[in-house]
Amino acid sequence: MPDEITLPDDRYFGPDMRQKEIALQLYAQVKDLPLICPHGHVDPRMFADPNYSFGSPADLLIIPDHYVFRMLYSQGIPLGKLGVPRQDGGEVERDHRKIWQTFADHFYLFRGTPTGVWLAYELRVVFGVRQQLATGTAQSIYDEIAARLATPEFRPRAMFERFKIEVLATTDAVSDPLDQHRALRDSGWPARIIPTFRPDAIVNLDAPNWRKNLDALSAASGISISSPQSLISALENRRAYFRQLGATATDHAALTPFTSELSANEADAIFQRALHGQAATDDASRFTGHMLMEMARMSIEDGLVMQLHPGSFRNHNDVIFQRFGLDKGCDIPTPTEYTRNLRPLLNKYGNDPRLSLILFALDETTYARELAPLAGHYPAVKLGPPWWFHDSFNGMMRFFDQVMETAGIYNTVGFNDDTRAFPSIPARHDVWRRASVNWLAGLVVRGFIGANDAEEMARALAYELAKRAYKL
Amino acid sequence: MPDEITLPDDRYFGPDMRQKEIALQLYAQVKDLPLICPHGHVDPRMFADPNYSFGSPADLLIIPDHYVFRMLYSQGIPLGKLGVPRQDGGEVERDHRKIWQTFADHFYLFRGTPTGVWLAYELRVVFGVRQQLATGTAQSIYDEIAARLATPEFRPRAMFERFKIEVLATTDAVSDPLDQHRALRDSGWPARIIPTFRPDAIVNLDAPNWRKNLDALSAASGISISSPQSLISALENRRAYFRQLGATATDHAALTPFTSELSANEADAIFQRALHGQAATDDASRFTGHMLMEMARMSIEDGLVMQLHPGSFRNHNDVIFQRFGLDKGCDIPTPTEYTRNLRPLLNKYGNDPRLSLILFALDETTYARELAPLAGHYPAVKLGPPWWFHDSFNGMMRFFDQVMETAGIYNTVGFNDDTRAFPSIPARHDVWRRASVNWLAGLVVRGFIGANDAEEMARALAYELAKRAYKL
Amino acid sequence: MPDEITLPDDRYFGPDMRQKEIALQLYAQVKDLPLICPHGHVDPRMFADPNYSFGSPADLLIIPDHYVFRMLYSQGIPLGKLGVPRQDGGEVERDHRKIWQTFADHFYLFRGTPTGVWLAYELRVVFGVRQQLATGTAQSIYDEIAARLATPEFRPRAMFERFKIEVLATTDAVSDPLDQHRALRDSGWPARIIPTFRPDAIVNLDAPNWRKNLDALSAASGISISSPQSLISALENRRAYFRQLGATATDHAALTPFTSELSANEADAIFQRALHGQAATDDASRFTGHMLMEMARMSIEDGLVMQLHPGSFRNHNDVIFQRFGLDKGCDIPTPTEYTRNLRPLLNKYGNDPRLSLILFALDETTYARELAPLAGHYPAVKLGPPWWFHDSFNGMMRFFDQVMETAGIYNTVGFNDDTRAFPSIPARHDVWRRASVNWLAGLVVRGFIGANDAEEMARALAYELAKRAYKL
Repeated sequence: MPDEITLPDDRYFGPDMRQKEIALQLYAQVKDLPLICPHGHVDPRMFADPNYSFGSPADLLIIPDHYVFRMLYSQGIPLGKLGVPRQDGGEVERDHRKIWQTFADHFYLFRGTPTGVWLAYELRVVFGVRQQLATGTAQSIYDEIAARLATPEFRPRAMFERFKIEVLATTDAVSDPLDQHRALRDSGWPARIIPTFRPDAIVNLDAPNWRKNLDALSAASGISISSPQSLISALENRRAYFRQLGATATDHAALTPFTSELSANEADAIFQRALHGQAATDDASRFTGHMLMEMARMSIEDGLVMQLHPGSFRNHNDVIFQRFGLDKGCDIPTPTEYTRNLRPLLNKYGNDPRLSLILFALDETTYARELAPLAGHYPAVKLGPPWWFHDSFNGMMRFFDQVMETAGIYNTVGFNDDTRAFPSIPARHDVWRRASVNWLAGLVVRGFIGANDAEEMARALAYELAKRAYKL
Repeated sequence: MPDEITLPDDRYFGPDMRQKEIALQLYAQVKDLPLICPHGHVDPRMFADPNYSFGSPADLLIIPDHYVFRMLYSQGIPLGKLGVPRQDGGEVERDHRKIWQTFADHFYLFRGTPTGVWLAYELRVVFGVRQQLATGTAQSIYDEIAARLATPEFRPRAMFERFKIEVLATTDAVSDPLDQHRALRDSGWPARIIPTFRPDAIVNLDAPNWRKNLDALSAASGISISSPQSLISALENRRAYFRQLGATATDHAALTPFTSELSANEADAIFQRALHGQAATDDASRFTGHMLMEMARMSIEDGLVMQLHPGSFRNHNDVIFQRFGLDKGCDIPTPTEYTRNLRPLLNKYGNDPRLSLILFALDETTYARELAPLAGHYPAVKLGPPWWFHDSFNGMMRFFDQVMETAGIYNTVGFNDDTRAFPSIPARHDVWRRASVNWLAGLVVRGFIGANDAEEMARALAYELAKRAYKL
Repeated sequence: MPDEITLPDDRYFGPDMRQKEIALQLYAQVKDLPLICPHGHVDPRMFADPNYSFGSPADLLIIPDHYVFRMLYSQGIPLGKLGVPRQDGGEVERDHRKIWQTFADHFYLFRGTPTGVWLAYELRVVFGVRQQLATGTAQSIYDEIAARLATPEFRPRAMFERFKIEVLATTDAVSDPLDQHRALRDSGWPARIIPTFRPDAIVNLDAPNWRKNLDALSAASGISISSPQSLISALENRRAYFRQLGATATDHAALTPFTSELSANEADAIFQRALHGQAATDDASRFTGHMLMEMARMSIEDGLVMQLHPGSFRNHNDVIFQRFGLDKGCDIPTPTEYTRNLRPLLNKYGNDPRLSLILFALDETTYARELAPLAGHYPAVKLGPPWWFHDSFNGMMRFFDQVMETAGIYNTVGFNDDTRAFPSIPARHDVWRRASVNWLAGLVVRGFIGANDAEEMARALAYELAKRAYKL
């Protein structure tokens, strides 16, 4: 007889009884607050089409989720056996029950991992599954989930409402016509789902298919792009379009947070080299560093919040990248430096309270050393929550430990789930809310803050800070 | 009715009852020990003039304290509104009640921060304020503090005695005539207040006003400085003078801990370039690296303890630096490397037990990786306590966690408050003493050390290590 | 009356009673499992000679143990006074009772250190000493240990059996004839003691005595080495020989984990320069980076597990190195980068499940940032346990905290003691087993994992993972 999934009410809280009691009281006050989801990668199509279906349990929980299949791959299971589609359209496993069985056979790999925590919540709370996933329960649990997915209650819109999502931001290419977002607006369904302006594929000259991306931007904006000036005009044009459809933020990924203003001539020379496919070694990083400053200027002008996510070495594994493409679990963090890299941008724009620059990190050594001191000084800087590999209970504890003393919680922006795995959204917010109140309960029980302060801080971390920081 | 400030007797201790009982027993044995303050920035004038007054509550607690106003500035409050004086003498807020109100209105920003912890102690214990500072209590608390400050008990000398400070070191420019220190000696007041020799403004060729500083050193030493040799003679002359007035230590800030001996010709060439305002790009760092080695040699000869505080990128924010000057909350840490940088100095002088080189860090990643291994090997190396942003309860916990296993506590030097905020001194030592005994209680309750060991270690951390390391 | 050494049954466990109860239950299930020792530096001669004697207590516990004498040296005690032999054969203390007394007089330095923890175990459990080592008990404890060492129960083979060591790997130069290992095989004593193939002295062109090492390899392999090709043939020859004598792994130290394939011409040019004593500045690091890739290829072919231990700046202290030689407590860690450095090797071989590359780190900042993401993706990568300075209770807690969420425990390889101090082996494994179950109990009590999962994980961490990872 297999074990049941157990999700005790006091889960994740420290074991001390007085601390736990305080944590439970604080949790009771935040657990039912609506979810603010200001940064994520959910496909808006799910909601634009009222009859959208998630497909099979494997379609929903395994095949698109690199958090899941990277772990299975690390133990020698080929991605093809998990149904991950190949770039060349070559054969991969198509029997979703087999994929699910492979997943269940290796579910023990997720013991003590955040993916394990999220999946326990998704199975038990979202899908009502009682038994733990294991070799012997795989097929019956597959049946259970498949049955649920066939019901109207498990359509995306119904789940969105059940999850109490107050606002959900997607992430969108700058040339995206945002048809799904327009359809959503037109559908009469009152949910707030908004786009986010992500220009990496244009701003990073070494992005795959850069030239094609540029042409798409020209087409979308109606501006022929032949220079940095026209590029900027086109981006400004699209920002305005995104804002019309509700966008409140931009998002920027870069290998490093390098910023530095180029002269008009330098910028133009680099851009012309890129247009002719002759970019020099550091042209891409210099141009990105220049464009980040331009983006900060635009944010001051149009009010879009600017998010910067540096430090990921994308597609570290060539074999996987060539066979399976982007986002296949082989992006690896690198050491990242913010103090010197961001100085040009911050010296020019960091004292302007109209700018809101939200910084994220994969290099936790920067939390106490660079990020908290920057956020605790510059009016423009705020810190995003623990990101990606650090979106975990321990990652949150390290963030609270290393950031909050110097930055204070009011220079942080609460939580965002940053996920494409829609059913994991409430699970992720629940971990954050539990981690937050557990941390606050620790401060109360040790006399660092009073009970009233803790209540206000709990509500801020769970709901208010995100809403305010993203102007929602 | 606003909340009261609560400072429970068991504050900051872990919640486990057995651990807390041990912590309380250890704390009882150290809490009343005199304070050793071997490194700080208190103005000696406070004590030289028996009638010195602190001014208004805003003069005392806000205007000079960059720990306080950086946080307010980070949330968009202009420094001028807080009364921080401008370099150009331009208008800033002069109504100290208004400044205090602004501070009180935003006091929630300090929730969970070390500044919040220190201020709670200062308000409650030092000034006897019972109510929490908030919008509604701002003016009455202002009145309370102002009334206290008008009494003889709140003159600096009375507070010094009340705080049980056994010795207080100030930090002084090498050309400082130390008139305040002489006046103190002559005054008959028996407190031990001693200077510290800080040559950064001379040794770092890129220091603001370097040429003026050099002239002042020439004048103070009576040695005309035209070469590295005469520079060294002048510094040796001033070290002797500082020692006469009780100094036991030098203090050195540098961007990095780079050390490397220059040939006499190289040193001279760099120095001549600097004299002619023609220093090359890396002249300043090379000269500092050379002079740090000279300083180590001098310390071996004259017995002054040598402190090195690297890793702060000073005046990161040009706008604030130009408008408000130095030390305005915009110094940001950078990644720092000690293993290779200190090797030349340590190879030449590190095996000499006559040298005591106390290392500090803003880059905590070096605690376990570089600093503890260096201190656990070289006879000359000791580790200073958590510095600046890390002078906090969590910062101390990380220091204990990451340093002590490899270095042992006897290669560390206890606590120093490193502050210019005089009334915060007992608050800061109290956090350290509580953090120390909490850590030791954790070792006892888990069987790592015995109760007798813990008592000796608690006393060492609270009092003896600092006294011994600084030869007091 | 001096204190007794106390080793409570629940030592090192967190104080919370529920967590401790779970930890004790888990510990009961793993404490008597045999010890797997797949990486260490014990001298095989101890076991090859059935009458081997450890010498005096100082011979056993002080003179050869750089963990011990580095700490004493850091407090100004000359190594000669501790009997550490000089390179030049010069006079050092020969009175082992005096050495022991010096050690005892300063035993307080080890309070709260892992060496203190191990020595408490060795004295109390291995040697049956009841009193704490201190000035007054030094000589009587010396007598006690000396008496034990004179008995047959304290011969190495008897202790090996008493410690329940299932397998012990030594570390051996590639040209070592492995005579001790052959003698062991021939002796009829059934213990499993196996060599490990360590080619650093050949592969790192800047190794001391490189040319001599190369000649020894030529002689041992019977292959005249005049080119990278013949070098590789000779190494392959010796790998086969090591495998015959039971080796299952290689071990590689390098200053950095840099890998990069050279062209045949480049490799040859560098090798020829080295043969002529004319190696250029970066020849050594480039050649090591190339040879690490060759070693990965060989591991795929012959199945030897590949261990990589980068990041130690060896012989940082020239004075000590010249007077006392290698491994005298003056190796200091440096910042280390894995993501970019390992990419060439991982792109070529990292997707091959036949390769098992076990990575170690002295730079803990890489745990969450680089190592766990790499291990959580590449089939070939596993993570070794906390190494050297981090082989401590706190070091293990940081490892569990920062590695396990992203890598999962199944991409780690359990424990290895990595020691030359034979009697410390059970003490070190005991700390690991206690740290493991304490961590698991923390996961159970907070509801991250169930009790059944914890039992399987405890057994894996204590025994199974090491056995499997090293193919034992």
